[in-house]
Amino acid sequence: MNRITQLFGIKYPIIQGGMIWCSGWELASAVSNAGGLGLIGAGSMYPEVLRDHIQKCKNATDKPFGVNIPLLYPDIDEHIKTIIDLGVKIVFTSAGSPKKFTPLLKSNGIKVVHVTSNLKFAKKSEESGVDAVVSEGFEAGGHNGREEITTMCLIPNVSNNINIPVIAAGGIGSGKSMLAAMSLGADGVQIGSRFVASVESSAHINFKSEVVKAKEGDTMLSLKQLTAVRLLNNDFYQQVKKAEDRGDSVKELQDLLGRGRSKKGMFEGDVIEGELEIGQVSSMIKEIIPVKKIIDEIILEFNSEKQRINSISF
Amino acid sequence: MNRITQLFGIKYPIIQGGMIWCSGWELASAVSNAGGLGLIGAGSMYPEVLRDHIQKCKNATDKPFGVNIPLLYPDIDEHIKTIIDLGVKIVFTSAGSPKKFTPLLKSNGIKVVHVTSNLKFAKKSEESGVDAVVSEGFEAGGHNGREEITTMCLIPNVSNNINIPVIAAGGIGSGKSMLAAMSLGADGVQIGSRFVASVESSAHINFKSEVVKAKEGDTMLSLKQLTAVRLLNNDFYQQVKKAEDRGDSVKELQDLLGRGRSKKGMFEGDVIEGELEIGQVSSMIKEIIPVKKIIDEIILEFNSEKQRINSISF
Repeated sequence: MNRITQLFGIKYPIIQGGMIWCSGWELASAVSNAGGLGLIGAGSMYPEVLRDHIQKCKNATDKPFGVNIPLLYPDIDEHIKTIIDLGVKIVFTSAGSPKKFTPLLKSNGIKVVHVTSNLKFAKKSEESGVDAVVSEGFEAGGHNGREEITTMCLIPNVSNNINIPVIAAGGIGSGKSMLAAMSLGADGVQIGSRFVASVESSAHINFKSEVVKAKEGDTMLSLKQLTAVRLLNNDFYQQVKKAEDRGDSVKELQDLLGRGRSKKGMFEGDVIEGELEIGQVSSMIKEIIPVKKIIDEIILEFNSEKQRINSISF
Repeated sequence: MNRITQLFGIKYPIIQGGMIWCSGWELASAVSNAGGLGLIGAGSMYPEVLRDHIQKCKNATDKPFGVNIPLLYPDIDEHIKTIIDLGVKIVFTSAGSPKKFTPLLKSNGIKVVHVTSNLKFAKKSEESGVDAVVSEGFEAGGHNGREEITTMCLIPNVSNNINIPVIAAGGIGSGKSMLAAMSLGADGVQIGSRFVASVESSAHINFKSEVVKAKEGDTMLSLKQLTAVRLLNNDFYQQVKKAEDRGDSVKELQDLLGRGRSKKGMFEGDVIEGELEIGQVSSMIKEIIPVKKIIDEIILEFNSEKQRINSISF
């Protein structure tokens, strides 16, 4: 047992990141059934879609699962209401102040975790009464901190300076990297990209295939003038890069991005014109496999690498 | 024993990064005397200065030490000649092709290590016959890869795909991060920033003090259009940022940088107008202490964290 398995009542301290367009009830329930904590990514769901996914997830697993909500979501009050109504027990919040909803969620018996990318906001999260934080490094996919602090530098700094459990995110997709994250002081890990390329993820097969094909250097933190996001190198990314290199204005970048780019790329499979959000760790993902196999492999490697490390002595 | 302690004949697999203006004979010999591998940073030395430092280092330690040479150094042939003449046994090369000098150095009985920031060049280094590679992540100080691959993602990818020993660099300055790097598959670690803020480093006291004051988010990879370099946030960095934000040309950036900026900042102590190169890990460095204390603390923490990790079981 450790602080994260205890907090959530799960077998392994592996959280599946709640990602837009990729993590519906099928992925979340598969992760929970395999011993981790599955999260439904509510950021890309209309209120009625979220309701449907929560109900289906309940039917698909009797294990704990949660919902991730970006606090900037337009219908945020509706989402919060749905979560409370349907008796969801775990909520991960991101992209906003944890002060706003934490008291309400906690008073409904919900465990709350906030996602941050630096120590400053990890401390603010702790002050606001959350049960744990996710500390997400620069190498992570999706939206990301501007200070570009990597997992290697972020996790020891956060875990040395707050008292609640720390879940490391960014660059983690294997037993080795889970062991590294826990060596740095994390109590558990949040894994996103590896689960995008799982059988159960709702990512379009074209996007999953691009993740498997990705090589080192194929993702780049982009659109820092809007909201920084790590993108997979495709035609759309090249358009963004050109626009940034020639010094386009915020307005011009917003126009280029337009609406629905991420749905187009990640959910509808237009891997040329769509926005593909993925982490640096994608360069090490070589096949699309079921969630249970992913988690079993991670735990197997974690244990064997732990033994290898234990045999080193100076 | 492991592959790195064996290769160099040292006690701990801790290499002190050969840094311009900061790592002369005093730092290198102190590191070697404390059980690591000290490197003289030849990149900021005139040929006669390097000769002097090598001789002084020999007098100060009977342990193995080495020299780091950036291959773009103008008087590179002179430096190579000095190294061979004076019987230096270990050379770390960086910033250039390892093919050019590796055969000559090897034929003189010198162990050669090349510094790279991605798998592609780690493989090329292996093919060129080097004895080991340093794989340096995005969070490292000084000059740095453009692909922005972090230590967390770089080390497993390199160590899974080459056969020679891998030394991890970038974000490492404590026993925890050393343990993490070795969990990721590294055989040893190269530490730069932590040794800048040591008693024995030749960095100006003003620069050392700025390193100790640095907080998270205070360094940023900059000047990507010239040679990417991680800079500490000071007045000069702000000038660079403004120039980059307004889309200045390569020529304008070169003019802004001018000549001797790094000497001015790191060696002469002008922390306003000088260029201060340091890693992200600087936010966790809290005091200027002797090298021996730094290394002893790292090994103590490595061993205690290894025990903690070993007690985790699923």
